[in-house]
Amino acid sequence: MIENVNSQNLPNKSYAYPTIAAICTPAGQGAIGVIRVSGEEAIAITQRVFSKKIMGAKGYTVHYGNIIDQNEIIDEVILLLFRSPHSFTKENVVEISCHGSPYILEKVLNLLLQNGAELAQAGAFTQRAFLNGAMDLAQAEAVADLIAAESAAAHKVAMRQLKGGFSNELKHLREQLLDFVTLIELELDFAEEDVAFADRSELKNLILSLLTKIEKLIASFRLGNVLKKGVPVAIAGKPNAGKSTLLNTLLGEEKAIVSHIAGTTRDVIEDVIQIEGILFRFMDTAGLRETEDFVEKIGVERALEKIKEAQILLFIYDASIESYEDTYKTACNFQEKHPETILILVANKADLCTNNIKEEKNSPTDLLHIAISAREKEGIDRLKKMLLATVGSEGLSTHETILTNTRHVEALRQAQAALMTVLDGLAIGLTGDLVSIDIRTALHHIGSITGEINTEEILGNIFGKFCIGK
Amino acid sequence: MIENVNSQNLPNKSYAYPTIAAICTPAGQGAIGVIRVSGEEAIAITQRVFSKKIMGAKGYTVHYGNIIDQNEIIDEVILLLFRSPHSFTKENVVEISCHGSPYILEKVLNLLLQNGAELAQAGAFTQRAFLNGAMDLAQAEAVADLIAAESAAAHKVAMRQLKGGFSNELKHLREQLLDFVTLIELELDFAEEDVAFADRSELKNLILSLLTKIEKLIASFRLGNVLKKGVPVAIAGKPNAGKSTLLNTLLGEEKAIVSHIAGTTRDVIEDVIQIEGILFRFMDTAGLRETEDFVEKIGVERALEKIKEAQILLFIYDASIESYEDTYKTACNFQEKHPETILILVANKADLCTNNIKEEKNSPTDLLHIAISAREKEGIDRLKKMLLATVGSEGLSTHETILTNTRHVEALRQAQAALMTVLDGLAIGLTGDLVSIDIRTALHHIGSITGEINTEEILGNIFGKFCIGK
Repeated sequence: MIENVNSQNLPNKSYAYPTIAAICTPAGQGAIGVIRVSGEEAIAITQRVFSKKIMGAKGYTVHYGNIIDQNEIIDEVILLLFRSPHSFTKENVVEISCHGSPYILEKVLNLLLQNGAELAQAGAFTQRAFLNGAMDLAQAEAVADLIAAESAAAHKVAMRQLKGGFSNELKHLREQLLDFVTLIELELDFAEEDVAFADRSELKNLILSLLTKIEKLIASFRLGNVLKKGVPVAIAGKPNAGKSTLLNTLLGEEKAIVSHIAGTTRDVIEDVIQIEGILFRFMDTAGLRETEDFVEKIGVERALEKIKEAQILLFIYDASIESYEDTYKTACNFQEKHPETILILVANKADLCTNNIKEEKNSPTDLLHIAISAREKEGIDRLKKMLLATVGSEGLSTHETILTNTRHVEALRQAQAALMTVLDGLAIGLTGDLVSIDIRTALHHIGSITGEINTEEILGNIFGKFCIGK
Repeated sequence: MIENVNSQNLPNKSYAYPTIAAICTPAGQGAIGVIRVSGEEAIAITQRVFSKKIMGAKGYTVHYGNIIDQNEIIDEVILLLFRSPHSFTKENVVEISCHGSPYILEKVLNLLLQNGAELAQAGAFTQRAFLNGAMDLAQAEAVADLIAAESAAAHKVAMRQLKGGFSNELKHLREQLLDFVTLIELELDFAEEDVAFADRSELKNLILSLLTKIEKLIASFRLGNVLKKGVPVAIAGKPNAGKSTLLNTLLGEEKAIVSHIAGTTRDVIEDVIQIEGILFRFMDTAGLRETEDFVEKIGVERALEKIKEAQILLFIYDASIESYEDTYKTACNFQEKHPETILILVANKADLCTNNIKEEKNSPTDLLHIAISAREKEGIDRLKKMLLATVGSEGLSTHETILTNTRHVEALRQAQAALMTVLDGLAIGLTGDLVSIDIRTALHHIGSITGEINTEEILGNIFGKFCIGK
């Protein structure tokens, strides 16, 4: 692993990279399509294809004119001009707002490339912003999370990270450790005099307190991951138990809320429900739906694969014709084999039952059980609350930091391991030089999250996942 | 039909309509998503959700800040502010450039709607531009054509129309007629004195010359329609005749040109080829492809439906095993039943043939015949030239107006009919008042194209076909 760039200490590198261009709006026809150009030559290159003079123009100005290719007008456009360092990338930036025609956008982009711009790779603009010190790595990652956010919760967590909440927390952790390691390393200069500038018991307390914070952050990832990606839920049950009716009832109410944008995101929301801002993803369990006898064929490979992915399994049965006891037995059998899955027994068609359905759990570890009528929309709110409770989203309403990124968790785990080694070292009275190595390792891993320490490989992994034009 | 709005004579109506808002960029995730707000309250409404003061800001300015919902930051955005009448709609306009997240865009749009904006219907912004006199109706229609343009030719024709070329031509036609009708109507005031201000033979000459121009415009529609929508081409032939190889060879070369945007428009270009800027649409003739014996099953309903839609049928056969004479007979048989279709006999695998394949036509009306090798890429350029020649696209390189809109053709046909009636009237010495009615009818239809005459129904038809946000 080569440590080669410390973005915080770089001089202004705005002009160190080639000028890049890309289409920034989603593919397809629309009213507006935007092309972004960034780099030292952004304004000069755009000038070569634009009908009006922009070379001397100030930053934060708007220009109306034509994009021209050999006397032919390609489009009437609006240009936004930003001057370094006052732009997203800290470089000169031009945003060209064209008619939203894929043909025109491609044509204008090609013109810019012919006139000296390079095609921007995925995430290239945000990477520039990072490399030029406009944001740290955790904030850059938050940009991608923000764009991908599909729920209020995912959006909130990404926005907090973008605004630097997490970065500040890490900076604080790092600074405390840095103070200590500096003192310890100072001792090395006075090795023969056997002094101890760094109070070992204070250091131990600091590390214990850091470990507590890191553990809390790592623990928050379970929730963070769920907030970011949504909670995968499978609905299973015999034919006619009411799976589709339940799904439609759940979806129906939500759909009404977003009805005015129907058509634009229908394929995304079809099987997705937000409950109090948390996304629940209802997975296609067609494999199960087609199965004639659910109990008999529950072992079917394909269906099981789907259920394995699910965090929650709604095990629905027709309470008007099936006994709770039989279903309970099957469910317990299933739960034994899949202890990780949260299983909710859903007694449907409760409105058709003459006797009351018992919902209580026999023990705290017993299965969740709820009686509903999907058709009559009875018990749906309680079911939603039950789904929500399994997520444990209390942390979202406070200002606690919630981790959503696997890379961050991995780095914190490695920092945690290094700090444990420091503790061990302190316990056996290890010399300062050796303790300092372990502290430096912990610092390295914490620093890698915000990009104070980074490698080409890390950057490639992160920005390669962005969309083109960001 | 109620004639109620003459946009040219309207006072500045910028503030006569409610403030509207919509997402202007295509659906899906991207780096940037834009929301447009237009109307008197555009700036005031945006101010209610924006973190910085924009109320006093000048037009053509850029503002960086946050969109806020009850102290929660929804997004960091760039605002573009335009002040009436210097905007696309001639109204106050704010364009909000957000992170390209469907969740964020929907959220920001909802905030604007809660704060007083109305959701813009399809085409509403362009309709405003028309109603406020920023463009005429033919130009407004060109905006939609421009966005939908998929080829250089379609783009060129739409851009000419947007820039007012067609409108000016119509204006000129109208003015000449108006001069005459005014004189004729003046005669009515002096009816008892039996004067004739309008020279009847001059009028006749004018109308003959207008009719020639109108006929030329109507005739240009056949090309215009093809330029706009692309030329539908079906490839038919027995299995293993080389249909797929030919299609791949044709597509392969084109794909290389656009390879750097592969992935974004792949599904659109897959079966589409541009030859010198003209689009050729290769239709799915799966029905034919599956047919075991093409000659025998050519009557199959489904396959014929596809072929009927095609303007050109590439009738491909394996020249190394099938005789030209047999294929020719089948093809002639087909041509007799479908005289409208341009049929090209393609002798494939010419490289495997020992004897030369005769390409000459026996008569000017005979079938087109060409020898190629799809696999060896021989004869492909000549085939492309042959395809191009069937379109007759010479008019595109001149500055002649080319009609692309069915509504315009229909209006011109009605104007043509009215002018013929004028001619008839002049021939039998009809009185001025009756002649003037027919001239007014012709004026009405010509005026309806640019919207000098329009109805709610016409406007609804036109703008309803736009995308939301335009």
